[in-house]
Amino acid sequence: MQKGMIVKNDAASAEKKYRAILQYVGTRYAGWQIQRNALTVQGVVREVLSRLAGHPVTVVGASRTDSGVHALGQVAHFFFPRKESIPDLRRALNALLPWDIRVMRLGPVGLRFHAQKHAVRKRYEYRISTTDVVPPFLHARVCHLPASLDFEAMQTAAVLLQGRHDFSSFAAAASRVRSHTRTVFLSEFRRRGHNLIYRVEADGFLHHMVRNFAGTLIEVGLGKRRPGDLPALLEARDRKRAGPTAPPEGLYLVKIWY
Amino acid sequence: MQKGMIVKNDAASAEKKYRAILQYVGTRYAGWQIQRNALTVQGVVREVLSRLAGHPVTVVGASRTDSGVHALGQVAHFFFPRKESIPDLRRALNALLPWDIRVMRLGPVGLRFHAQKHAVRKRYEYRISTTDVVPPFLHARVCHLPASLDFEAMQTAAVLLQGRHDFSSFAAAASRVRSHTRTVFLSEFRRRGHNLIYRVEADGFLHHMVRNFAGTLIEVGLGKRRPGDLPALLEARDRKRAGPTAPPEGLYLVKIWY
Repeated sequence: MQKGMIVKNDAASAEKKYRAILQYVGTRYAGWQIQRNALTVQGVVREVLSRLAGHPVTVVGASRTDSGVHALGQVAHFFFPRKESIPDLRRALNALLPWDIRVMRLGPVGLRFHAQKHAVRKRYEYRISTTDVVPPFLHARVCHLPASLDFEAMQTAAVLLQGRHDFSSFAAAASRVRSHTRTVFLSEFRRRGHNLIYRVEADGFLHHMVRNFAGTLIEVGLGKRRPGDLPALLEARDRKRAGPTAPPEGLYLVKIWY
Repeated sequence: MQKGMIVKNDAASAEKKYRAILQYVGTRYAGWQIQRNALTVQGVVREVLSRLAGHPVTVVGASRTDSGVHALGQVAHFFFPRKESIPDLRRALNALLPWDIRVMRLGPVGLRFHAQKHAVRKRYEYRISTTDVVPPFLHARVCHLPASLDFEAMQTAAVLLQGRHDFSSFAAAASRVRSHTRTVFLSEFRRRGHNLIYRVEADGFLHHMVRNFAGTLIEVGLGKRRPGDLPALLEARDRKRAGPTAPPEGLYLVKIWY
């Protein structure tokens, strides 16, 4: 038996695959994905895991949330030495992580699980506050739009985004994925006092898709577009036809299904 | 007519008395009241008002919230030059104030109004989270107590604090006010999932009174005290007999009645 073989086997048996559910306040971060010279959630989580493990640990997240976007249910997987109990590992992670990133849940997961590739459905929420003054407790956590919005029109338009469509009109201009076809299972508004919550679920989202939905639906709410314009807008497959990208602070990655 | 008279009359007619409803996230502040060499809410509000007025402005607040304590409805009064409309003044204040202090409402008020002396009833809330991991969105905004609390016992004990009593057992040791007798109109718990909210209303509060209530009621929840001990505890008029002062991050000044 070769020496290298033994080391490899030892390493494999000493490591376990974990799935973590993360929440983070996105305000301080340049998004999820690691970038040079920028503070990112993935970078911080990787650093903390690597420090605890004593060697570099790779973290794979389900969704590459943008700068300033929040998460209530980001899912990530990683390999980690089988040395601590799960509650102890979670506690150690939360003790080292900054206050705005928390490991809410942690568990073992099968070796074949992949946080990004195996996601079958994701839920995002876009939160809008229409009050004159946003309570400080919601600072950078809602999109502030002190205007009278036509809620019924927004709701009518939102529902028209449901279904299987080519969403090129709502993809970031730089989007380079092969297909822009996605299935939107749910697209609806809820109202709580001065707060509007837009909830959308799909089998996948193009870059900026939710914020482009939100920006377009806000224009409907402001009377700049009609709900009936939505089908033609989808049909056009032209980013220039849809509304602006709504600001990141209103966006939450809520839940991911596998 | 004397020159001094004219100046005084001019000044009086050029100034108006205002009442502001303020919200603030108390985390960064050494409490409401101005102190040397410490960042305080009153100090920041005074500075912004003075800058806008072009001369020093005095701000009187209803409640001297402690370091780290939050406000959803602090009330303050001040005199200010009669030069802008109320919406413009509110907008100017919020533009200059840091994000964690907001003027939610602003209006003219009679010259005799006094934010502190004329308050007849105040409501505070003490928020407790019993989850294993506090969501980052609630960081420094709840008291984290990852324990199984006996909600029924806490509620039974809370109600026993209602009524007109000498609350010396719950006043800060250094309290130097003449009377420790106050009327507690309401003292009750609400439960929302893993969150407990203690709501208390009184005609006035002694220093640390709500946090000492909370600390004692938490001990009831943990089984260290019985609800039936409360009457004797009140009777004792001895700070040493009650529970510890609960941490400030769970406390909110919610509302003030005049």
